[in-house]
Amino acid sequence: MAKQSEITAEEFNQFIERDLPFARIFNIAAVEMQPEAVVLCASHTADGLRPGGTIAGPVMMGLADAALYAVVIANIGMVKLAVTTNLSINFLRKPRPGDLYCRAKILKLGKRLAVCEASIYYLHEDEDRIGEELVAHVTGTYSIPPADK
Amino acid sequence: MAKQSEITAEEFNQFIERDLPFARIFNIAAVEMQPEAVVLCASHTADGLRPGGTIAGPVMMGLADAALYAVVIANIGMVKLAVTTNLSINFLRKPRPGDLYCRAKILKLGKRLAVCEASIYYLHEDEDRIGEELVAHVTGTYSIPPADK
Amino acid sequence: MAKQSEITAEEFNQFIERDLPFARIFNIAAVEMQPEAVVLCASHTADGLRPGGTIAGPVMMGLADAALYAVVIANIGMVKLAVTTNLSINFLRKPRPGDLYCRAKILKLGKRLAVCEASIYYLHEDEDRIGEELVAHVTGTYSIPPADK
Amino acid sequence: MAKQSEITAEEFNQFIERDLPFARIFNIAAVEMQPEAVVLCASHTADGLRPGGTIAGPVMMGLADAALYAVVIANIGMVKLAVTTNLSINFLRKPRPGDLYCRAKILKLGKRLAVCEASIYYLHEDEDRIGEELVAHVTGTYSIPPADK
Repeated sequence: MAKQSEITAEEFNQFIERDLPFARIFNIAAVEMQPEAVVLCASHTADGLRPGGTIAGPVMMGLADAALYAVVIANIGMVKLAVTTNLSINFLRKPRPGDLYCRAKILKLGKRLAVCEASIYYLHEDEDRIGEELVAHVTGTYSIPPADK
Repeated sequence: MAKQSEITAEEFNQFIERDLPFARIFNIAAVEMQPEAVVLCASHTADGLRPGGTIAGPVMMGLADAALYAVVIANIGMVKLAVTTNLSINFLRKPRPGDLYCRAKILKLGKRLAVCEASIYYLHEDEDRIGEELVAHVTGTYSIPPADK
Repeated sequence: MAKQSEITAEEFNQFIERDLPFARIFNIAAVEMQPEAVVLCASHTADGLRPGGTIAGPVMMGLADAALYAVVIANIGMVKLAVTTNLSINFLRKPRPGDLYCRAKILKLGKRLAVCEASIYYLHEDEDRIGEELVAHVTGTYSIPPADK
Repeated sequence: MAKQSEITAEEFNQFIERDLPFARIFNIAAVEMQPEAVVLCASHTADGLRPGGTIAGPVMMGLADAALYAVVIANIGMVKLAVTTNLSINFLRKPRPGDLYCRAKILKLGKRLAVCEASIYYLHEDEDRIGEELVAHVTGTYSIPPADK
């Protein structure tokens, strides 16, 4: 029997609505929450563009940051004060306007640190098949506060 | 005689107004543009907060990304299609609400890549003295398009 | 018909023998060379240990650097002057002494930059099954010199 | 009265001799140990070269890793089990053969994590003046074990 996420996509989206104005402004929402992987989507908004008409780097960084947070709490439950200590992103392709997805998973879940990896991609139809085109790759570390706090 | 920036703070701020909605939303503006260093400020806005009432990571990443871009064009002139290839940030302290500054400088300016460093800090008065408190440290690489494009 | 590697594991190992003293000292050798992924192994040597008796970080960084280089040349052929511009490593577990493996693949192969990812792991037998235990995760960027050089 | 380093350069070099074969092989030694900054040197050895005759990336990564460790213990005393959790390096120039230096300092010293920065450079004489030429820039995070361990 598979482990369940500590929090549903709907609960995460209510949390965004209430507490994460950044994610709300850039139309970021959880699509799937599983302990093994979460998927978030940043739906298209003109506010997310940069010169050249492609999606701005900070939107991708914000999407990744939210996805890393989501996968941590999918595993350890709602810990509002878990904070990113490090995030590193490689931009691979300029994403044209459209809905952007981010899948995050955990590489190592320790007592004090969680190291995560995320892929940012968009979907495209390729002869009846839905494919993913990778546009950025992210690694990040979350610091988990001691349980008694 | 010191080299001058290829672009003034005012010109950069007009560019933000027109072309960088992300920076506009988070009140990001250039304060100082010199080839040796640029300083940008993200003035306080409630949209930039995260749970716990501190400033959200994506706001800092967006501020840093804009500052890295600013220091590159302060040196090579307006190249709208220069793109970040890599950005790595270490979050050092949770910044309480307030105006956040970012100073960026170039570590190496090559023909194809510019490697930059940035410090994110806020100012505080400490007995008649203005001090800086470091809240994050960033390194990033920009890819410079060939001159004929 | 699958694309073949531009270079065999044997050729890569001859190159290590001749030109990469670092890799030779730490017993690094190619096990598998395919354009989709290469696998290198750092066989156990007491010179690779650190206090606590685990394998030292620089050995893992050297193994990853060699693996990133190997996967680049598996795709574009022997370009001795391709150089790493950036390498970022997350250490996940302290690896006990033993043979360490690194699998590297390319995330994006451009004309000027190749962005790669690598996993460092050791093998363990788990009830008749061979498993991999991840000990570090690496991303890196290679700069590819212009073809006419 | 300035704070003193918890450990002298001589003590650190004895530690290298005994416990860090990697550093010994690549002629790495502490030159200066202060809590504000440490300087290590990797003296020239043919074993540290790569194709093209410049100094290999893993030697620079090993030098930086040792320097980050040195600056942490200069501040908190000898903690053999402090481990790097993350290291990110930007290579700026190919260093020609010669003695390579690394200066490391702490950006943030917390109870559980120390975030550090290091510059790798070589010295050159420039009309009676000794200058530093930056060849790589490093950031890294150390995890500090709980005091009772």
